[in-house]
Amino acid sequence: MTSRQNRNRDRADRGIPEATVARLPVYLRALHSLQERDVATVSSEELAAAAGVNSAKLRKDLSHLGSYGTRGVGYEVEYLVYQISRELGLTQDWVVAIIGVGNLGRALAGYGGFASRGFRVAGLLDADESIVGQTISGMAVEHIDRLEDLIAERGVSIAVIATPAVAAQGLCDRVVASGVTSVLNFAPVVLSVPEGVDVRKVDLSIELQILAFHEQRKAGGPGDYEPLAAGDEPPGTTHYVEAVEA
Amino acid sequence: MTSRQNRNRDRADRGIPEATVARLPVYLRALHSLQERDVATVSSEELAAAAGVNSAKLRKDLSHLGSYGTRGVGYEVEYLVYQISRELGLTQDWVVAIIGVGNLGRALAGYGGFASRGFRVAGLLDADESIVGQTISGMAVEHIDRLEDLIAERGVSIAVIATPAVAAQGLCDRVVASGVTSVLNFAPVVLSVPEGVDVRKVDLSIELQILAFHEQRKAGGPGDYEPLAAGDEPPGTTHYVEAVEA
Repeated sequence: MTSRQNRNRDRADRGIPEATVARLPVYLRALHSLQERDVATVSSEELAAAAGVNSAKLRKDLSHLGSYGTRGVGYEVEYLVYQISRELGLTQDWVVAIIGVGNLGRALAGYGGFASRGFRVAGLLDADESIVGQTISGMAVEHIDRLEDLIAERGVSIAVIATPAVAAQGLCDRVVASGVTSVLNFAPVVLSVPEGVDVRKVDLSIELQILAFHEQRKAGGPGDYEPLAAGDEPPGTTHYVEAVEA
Repeated sequence: MTSRQNRNRDRADRGIPEATVARLPVYLRALHSLQERDVATVSSEELAAAAGVNSAKLRKDLSHLGSYGTRGVGYEVEYLVYQISRELGLTQDWVVAIIGVGNLGRALAGYGGFASRGFRVAGLLDADESIVGQTISGMAVEHIDRLEDLIAERGVSIAVIATPAVAAQGLCDRVVASGVTSVLNFAPVVLSVPEGVDVRKVDLSIELQILAFHEQRKAGGPGDYEPLAAGDEPPGTTHYVEAVEA
């Protein structure tokens, strides 16, 4: 059940590295922006700049999809959107249940970016009787006791866990026992799952930590790695960074 | 103001690639878990598995910090935590203001993962008079008119924008005009900033898209890239994926 074994298996099956898979949604976001501006074709350099990667990496990533562009023209935006969407599985609808309807669960329930990418939130569940029955983003919150029935009735294929840490593993176990094999975890805890189940964890502080790195650079730190030595780097470095991973 | 120019400048200055910087918080998360279990040393293989990367990449990443471990022993957990925290700038406090106190802003205001990494939320701001004055996670929401004063008075160095898309650019401009050079953007819009300002964008749907990719694989799709051809890949592939980027 190690992640490496399965990642290698994945590579052997399809030849698409995990790191490429992780960048495809970023390319897709950039391509959607181009579509909004009625751009029909895009060079690898332009698309790479918009996505915040270098163009050689972009071309290699897209070659895994069998997409090579046309010399002197670039990539056809609409077809590339179709190819990436198809590769990611976004050309079909995915039924999502959100478990835990606190502030984060509410924010996710109303998040416009889900519906536009083919994710349909079909259920909101919480254990708190004072929340059950409330209408959030047009949907009534249901009691967590209904979890298994709701998954079966509505064909839920992805569970989003947005509960406190202490509740997450138990709910994850119930979700997996109900046959769901994809879990997006916002709870601050590492979930254990059997082989065949994908868990991805979102840590909202990671992007802040990357900003702190650059903020420190701008201030001139941290200097060399002599234990506890004071910083001695020249100040004034500036950066503009587009997030490649969110 | 292109991202590539500045990224290259960054590399030349310090020799730490952006991709390595993005993985350091993931290593740190894994190391904190080891500390909680009183683990004193860790091999590169163990740490790599916990972080979801391969061990060669981990060793190379850590070598940028001047950290090479000890043959047969591995890395000393406590010292590596110190090195990474120092590199990321987490050994000092960062003062954060959250702009936009809807569901997401509330979730971020109460997010435990910020304080524990050195991020102190010193202000909550909103334009909605019905929200101003409310107490969220022990802090009173202030009117957005106070933005510039609040940044100056409290020494805000990182602004978190959690507003609707339409308001984000104007608020970003005000934040930047007040001297803040790090912006974490949750609004579904690309922000324009002058050179010297770092923006990182969080798209909450990206992890879901990666799950969809694997879910589709498990179901046997999408097959080859003949336009509109039906999927013809053997079913039954399973994966376990640890999120490397959040």
